[in-house]
Amino acid sequence: MSTPQYRVVEMTEAEVETERTVLGGLAQSIRLLNEASLRTTIAPEEVAAIRTEVDRLTEKLSREQIPGAFGVSFTPDGTVRGHGNAVVGLRNPIAVPLQIHKDGHGHATAEFHLGALYEGPPGCVHGGVLALLLDQVLGESAADGGSPGMTGTLTLRYVRPTPLGDCSIEAWVDHVEGIKTIVRGEFRRDDGSTTVEVEGIFILPKWAREAMSEEEPRPPRFE
Amino acid sequence: MSTPQYRVVEMTEAEVETERTVLGGLAQSIRLLNEASLRTTIAPEEVAAIRTEVDRLTEKLSREQIPGAFGVSFTPDGTVRGHGNAVVGLRNPIAVPLQIHKDGHGHATAEFHLGALYEGPPGCVHGGVLALLLDQVLGESAADGGSPGMTGTLTLRYVRPTPLGDCSIEAWVDHVEGIKTIVRGEFRRDDGSTTVEVEGIFILPKWAREAMSEEEPRPPRFE
Repeated sequence: MSTPQYRVVEMTEAEVETERTVLGGLAQSIRLLNEASLRTTIAPEEVAAIRTEVDRLTEKLSREQIPGAFGVSFTPDGTVRGHGNAVVGLRNPIAVPLQIHKDGHGHATAEFHLGALYEGPPGCVHGGVLALLLDQVLGESAADGGSPGMTGTLTLRYVRPTPLGDCSIEAWVDHVEGIKTIVRGEFRRDDGSTTVEVEGIFILPKWAREAMSEEEPRPPRFE
Repeated sequence: MSTPQYRVVEMTEAEVETERTVLGGLAQSIRLLNEASLRTTIAPEEVAAIRTEVDRLTEKLSREQIPGAFGVSFTPDGTVRGHGNAVVGLRNPIAVPLQIHKDGHGHATAEFHLGALYEGPPGCVHGGVLALLLDQVLGESAADGGSPGMTGTLTLRYVRPTPLGDCSIEAWVDHVEGIKTIVRGEFRRDDGSTTVEVEGIFILPKWAREAMSEEEPRPPRFE
């Protein structure tokens, strides 16, 4: 049984800005490469030559690296950033990345485009991708309007297919029961009709509650 | 309201083999690039130079491409392949890709490694990624032991965190009720303990049932 390594690092505001523009910019370019490689129909010989160049870039990027998983960074004002997050991480090339707007009372919304990379049934968003994105938005809704927590349960009802294209998510805190925050939400396709209804229960784990009560009087503020 | 474009194409076995080795090879190399870009700590100037090279490769790959989403291909024997699928697609750089083993009676298993790209809480697999992968394996279990269908409902219970690293999924058909196939499954971490329990109901949509009864006496065989 291995214990995963991850980084917890303090960054200055200037370092965060470089991360956002330079490394976030690289991730954005690689997102376009991901889609181009999926959809290309150029000749096999050309593809093989491009693969060699990709391997060379990977080797350059790997010369110095974070030893394990990305982890989190925080700035002196206490803001925690998950720039490696699989859904919202600006440095993660497989993240859409979702930009989630919150109103400070647990109401969260996101509008975004899902292209060929997110396909399940032909022409449609993968049912699991719908769950992936909903989990993140509901989790942020819980943190914004209840308390930050990890997913306890997630119940999804798929009411119609979701075509690839422009999509949106809306989530809101339904109610709070002690350490549980119950959140509801909907995934909507480009015409605004609901394609998935979801309910999630988010729970602050015991170890996190104990750490907070001992060391920090308030939960951290997430970006 | 847009109607998404996707491709349905017949391929020879030789074309499938080229897709597997050459284009699948490119996707595999880009998966390593994705992770390297997330974990790199090289100087910002070097990162910017690499970004320019990535953009150049994207431009080359985009010269000729599938017009919309990837869709599906099929070979003359009737096998349908979703090489663009977000979870199992060998041409999709954001797919793990999962290799799912089925016994012909709805029992499906997969063993795989999840690295930094799949992070949610620090050092742990994103809760939504767990749902994403479970949805695919349960869907394949339903197709293998009941009938192929789209996700109707998915109910996930997260029982403990899943550290990044070696993971596995097991899924099995619980029972079939008419057009519904009820599948259960578990996500397990490297020590074999269960981290997520899931139940899914998979339903063959009405349009698919009608198409099958009119044109094809049997459901297609999925790779």
